[in-house]
Amino acid sequence: MIRYEEMMKGVLVVISGPSGTGKGTICSRLSRENSKLYNAISLTTRPPRQGEEDGVSYFFSSEEDFRRLILEDALLEWAHVYGHYYGTLCEQVEEKLALGFDVILEIDTQGAEQVRRREKEAIFIFLLPPSMEELWARIQGRGTDSQAAIRERFAAARREIEEACKYDYVVINEDVVETTKAVEAIILAEKCRAERNQNMIRRLKEGEKG
Amino acid sequence: MIRYEEMMKGVLVVISGPSGTGKGTICSRLSRENSKLYNAISLTTRPPRQGEEDGVSYFFSSEEDFRRLILEDALLEWAHVYGHYYGTLCEQVEEKLALGFDVILEIDTQGAEQVRRREKEAIFIFLLPPSMEELWARIQGRGTDSQAAIRERFAAARREIEEACKYDYVVINEDVVETTKAVEAIILAEKCRAERNQNMIRRLKEGEKG
Repeated sequence: MIRYEEMMKGVLVVISGPSGTGKGTICSRLSRENSKLYNAISLTTRPPRQGEEDGVSYFFSSEEDFRRLILEDALLEWAHVYGHYYGTLCEQVEEKLALGFDVILEIDTQGAEQVRRREKEAIFIFLLPPSMEELWARIQGRGTDSQAAIRERFAAARREIEEACKYDYVVINEDVVETTKAVEAIILAEKCRAERNQNMIRRLKEGEKG
Repeated sequence: MIRYEEMMKGVLVVISGPSGTGKGTICSRLSRENSKLYNAISLTTRPPRQGEEDGVSYFFSSEEDFRRLILEDALLEWAHVYGHYYGTLCEQVEEKLALGFDVILEIDTQGAEQVRRREKEAIFIFLLPPSMEELWARIQGRGTDSQAAIRERFAAARREIEEACKYDYVVINEDVVETTKAVEAIILAEKCRAERNQNMIRRLKEGEKG
């Protein structure tokens, strides 16, 4: 008997989207509502902020260790931003996938490009704001940034959106519930793709009648 | 404002699967539970059976009219089976898609092949039985056929399954609720595919901030 669960092998899901599209909210919601879904934790050389625990929002690493991991090709993707390294350990992702978890990487378009080159079976989802006006309002609404910083963030968001068409899927994040549902649907649908199930189809055909 | 509904343009969904996989049950359930989902009605030259109304399970047509429709290229797919014509009117499908309905065609692998050549944007889903033993049991379980007919039906099912890998998606129909959910997920996911949303992405990018 070939069971449905055999189609349920974990998949790697990359989620990108400009700042202000609500990636973080969607990713936490996804893992909260799906017990077999794991949000990968980034490794960083930036020092922990007050109250940050190692292995919760980040794994913390020394520069020396991080550079060694780069040279050992142990990172699925990494970047050097504002003087600190950030990256994702291959091992962490592979371990979780092997245990049957779907693994979500919430990373920017440059990180996604690195994953795209390494992981042919990963799924790439780009979250979009409902409109540029709405994005502007959301970026401005944070209230902590200067006008110059807001304009810079908005320009960066516009550049990120240029990359959306390189992704497999785009989801307009207008409503958290609908967006979560769409991402869940994408993951389930991808597991049903015929190209992911060639072995299963072959085994089914080879099965004899009872 | 670019609304989520703009991604919700109707899609054409072809569902195939050998006899005994429960295609009919799944398709009725899908349209019963989704008000924007329409099961296309076949056109046939076979005479109506007792109680069959035109436009419910079939549209009934004369041989002459059917042949004219073939020559006018007005059929999305058609076949001549046991002395009768069966087919799907392009017009019916296009009308429903234009109204925003997703349209389901429950057709065999030969019909699907015709749609595949004409409709590049259609989605092809193949329903599989959980095992060949289970399929044999289901075909036999109908109780009305002779052993020879059962063997013939089973052999035909095995040949149909050979075609599964030409489809975009395969779903093992072990449980009606799970299978319905998987088909719904496939439809929603397909609407989020970046390639179907190039215009939306372009319009979003061109939008100015408020």
